[in-house]
Amino acid sequence: MKQFTSVHDVSDPFQLVQEALALKAQPHAHTDLGRNKTVILVFFNPSLRTRLSTELAAKNLGCNVMTLNVADGWKLEFADGTVMNAGTAEHIREAAGVMSQYADILAVRSFPGLEDKEKDYADQIMRAFMEHATVPVVSLESAIRHPLQSLADWVTIEEYKRRKRPKVVLSWAPHPRALPQAVSNSFLEWMQQAPVDLVLTHPKGYELDPSFVGDTPVIYDQEEAFADAEFIYTKNWSAVYPYGQKPEVEKDWQITEAKMALTNKAFFMHCLPVRRNVVVSDGVIESPKSLVLPQAGNRLYAAQAVLKSLLENV
Amino acid sequence: MKQFTSVHDVSDPFQLVQEALALKAQPHAHTDLGRNKTVILVFFNPSLRTRLSTELAAKNLGCNVMTLNVADGWKLEFADGTVMNAGTAEHIREAAGVMSQYADILAVRSFPGLEDKEKDYADQIMRAFMEHATVPVVSLESAIRHPLQSLADWVTIEEYKRRKRPKVVLSWAPHPRALPQAVSNSFLEWMQQAPVDLVLTHPKGYELDPSFVGDTPVIYDQEEAFADAEFIYTKNWSAVYPYGQKPEVEKDWQITEAKMALTNKAFFMHCLPVRRNVVVSDGVIESPKSLVLPQAGNRLYAAQAVLKSLLENV
Amino acid sequence: MKQFTSVHDVSDPFQLVQEALALKAQPHAHTDLGRNKTVILVFFNPSLRTRLSTELAAKNLGCNVMTLNVADGWKLEFADGTVMNAGTAEHIREAAGVMSQYADILAVRSFPGLEDKEKDYADQIMRAFMEHATVPVVSLESAIRHPLQSLADWVTIEEYKRRKRPKVVLSWAPHPRALPQAVSNSFLEWMQQAPVDLVLTHPKGYELDPSFVGDTPVIYDQEEAFADAEFIYTKNWSAVYPYGQKPEVEKDWQITEAKMALTNKAFFMHCLPVRRNVVVSDGVIESPKSLVLPQAGNRLYAAQAVLKSLLENV
Repeated sequence: MKQFTSVHDVSDPFQLVQEALALKAQPHAHTDLGRNKTVILVFFNPSLRTRLSTELAAKNLGCNVMTLNVADGWKLEFADGTVMNAGTAEHIREAAGVMSQYADILAVRSFPGLEDKEKDYADQIMRAFMEHATVPVVSLESAIRHPLQSLADWVTIEEYKRRKRPKVVLSWAPHPRALPQAVSNSFLEWMQQAPVDLVLTHPKGYELDPSFVGDTPVIYDQEEAFADAEFIYTKNWSAVYPYGQKPEVEKDWQITEAKMALTNKAFFMHCLPVRRNVVVSDGVIESPKSLVLPQAGNRLYAAQAVLKSLLENV
Repeated sequence: MKQFTSVHDVSDPFQLVQEALALKAQPHAHTDLGRNKTVILVFFNPSLRTRLSTELAAKNLGCNVMTLNVADGWKLEFADGTVMNAGTAEHIREAAGVMSQYADILAVRSFPGLEDKEKDYADQIMRAFMEHATVPVVSLESAIRHPLQSLADWVTIEEYKRRKRPKVVLSWAPHPRALPQAVSNSFLEWMQQAPVDLVLTHPKGYELDPSFVGDTPVIYDQEEAFADAEFIYTKNWSAVYPYGQKPEVEKDWQITEAKMALTNKAFFMHCLPVRRNVVVSDGVIESPKSLVLPQAGNRLYAAQAVLKSLLENV
Repeated sequence: MKQFTSVHDVSDPFQLVQEALALKAQPHAHTDLGRNKTVILVFFNPSLRTRLSTELAAKNLGCNVMTLNVADGWKLEFADGTVMNAGTAEHIREAAGVMSQYADILAVRSFPGLEDKEKDYADQIMRAFMEHATVPVVSLESAIRHPLQSLADWVTIEEYKRRKRPKVVLSWAPHPRALPQAVSNSFLEWMQQAPVDLVLTHPKGYELDPSFVGDTPVIYDQEEAFADAEFIYTKNWSAVYPYGQKPEVEKDWQITEAKMALTNKAFFMHCLPVRRNVVVSDGVIESPKSLVLPQAGNRLYAAQAVLKSLLENV
């Protein structure tokens, strides 16, 4: 593995899931691998879970970690040929080139603006780091993907599944704000490679980008989709068409005990943070079927598996 | 010790003071204790001394440390049953549950609003972490207590006292802003367990909460209180009734050389930061009797003693 | 070496350059030197390169590092005798005294206001730390100097020079904002001790402070200055007289391919961040003669040489 920005960077995703599970069993078995190696985490948006789990993953492997929050302070130029006499103070070519000299791995979090689909789906910040960094780049979530989350999700499904090929439903749920499609996009492209029967359910108007949906069946009736499900993976996202909007939805798409009762004793999954009693009822998230904490816990081992794989090639 | 949020969590405070002094003599004698252990520090308010001393204490014990400043970025919900469709984005149940998976010890700083006494004295943030974290919680100052400061203060008194049972005076002093009562509350409850004769002095209108004052004698005449004192511990606080206000004070309560001359060659103590020539005169804080720097230095060993004790039980 | 705030703190600068080159060859040869030692980095202004390179330098030597960004949160008082009843919350005497107890080396970045020359050139923040800290102080850039940058620059020149005594030109270049003189001041005082022929070129009105220019020849015609040059070191600065202003400049002082063609195949140097096509053309900065990335890379070894030298005396 030369970088980790989507499932397409991983030659054998299932093997990576197994690696994460092995690290969960023995998180400190490789504390020498990262000796004198440095991971720099760059956050263009603040982060809690991703920062803590990735920092700890790097430390568990014996790496140095340096974390940079650049929310406001660092105005990067991404366009080539610009006369930089306005707001931007440094070109990504220099920024990535400099940081590559201080790091063995560069991990980056960016975020969509949710105003211009073409611009967001070009994934400019992540692609610029991929192009100009001279060390492996790890996505800590980009404008359109969140592969570390999806890997952790797969690890969790692998741990909790009751049969070889469970039915997994990705269900839209309501939210007061317009959110990115990154988690859902990534979940689809990872699950399409997993030994599961994947179904996507959401209200009309919330169709995801076809390049991520692929052949995954879409069922617009949430209750129908839940039949026989063994995992309900829930996430809000804003519309792709018209981009970033929140079209009205007639029914209540919140995940409730009544809806969970339609499934085959399904587990409930969500990447967190989650709005209780909007996305999911207290009853569901606090039930023994709720996997939200194990999922977050597995973020650590997902990150550690990725960093380990990259360090072995550095 | 299972957590460290007040003196009531400590079965033998004097023993903890002795532990801190032992660590001061040999700060690097236990660098293996924290190997592969992680301390997460969460600051809901910015911090200088507390952050540096606690980070270093953890590192002296060989721990990983991850520090999170969440001043603005992280809107937590503390109430149960809320429909979270407004400002809060994550429930403390998930937040504490997630961080507990990345940490062996969770240390938290919060702060009072100074507008609603009942709310502040319920100490909501600290109590929520105590309830929902699954690892030991350390208070880095809460709305109503600052136990690491008080432990460092006791260590300092232990180092400098000239006889077995010195007279210690906690004296209010002026300040341009309305400040919390946390340091003073904690100092009272720790000193009430220490081998000292404790006296509290402040202007009328600045009575502290009776649950912290207990049997400690209150003398409203600062000069009378200072007679025979061997330690003058100074701190401003805003009124408890009416809560968070700053009632007018007739006399000047600043700690001056003239007032220190009334004592029994007392040492001057303050937790810092301190407003010079408002709280205390330059002459007093720069005199050989000033212990403000040793106090701050002892913050390190107080934190290290607490973390060591918790790590031994993890 | 007892501190590192200017070239005047270094008894043998050339020896320090050699030390940096030795560390570049073997960056991890001294990982025990900093065991149980702590470096605190205090940034009164945000930083990318300086923070990352200095943190990593300290870690390469086995030190603990704690980084404090105090841009807004920490209002320090520098004047003695002040009645601190207004905006400042802590006196530098306490602040430096406290941090000195948690650190073996204190590294500080400050910045000029560019409004009052006398005040900026008094270098108040750096001098206050030098006076009140009880551990060695390292400048991470002050109001008037940036010695770690200059040391890295010298290291780079040493690596790339083609003969014993190359001609080095420090050239002003345009910039949309008013910038400090710190990098240029420091470059002059370091190069004046280096085995180079140093020339300074800038438009009339941009004369640097005589105490830094010394005997260095000034040529107002940029093209004339470039003749035979082997290194073009470029930097914008605002005027010293009238202080912090940006007087109009008639010609275009941008570094272009045409101007580089006037030199003796000179290398291009800049400390970064740089405004492309304002300070320097894309063609120059992307040419094989551009040393901007090696310079930034050498920041690591410059910092490491300085910390190593200080740690050997701690």
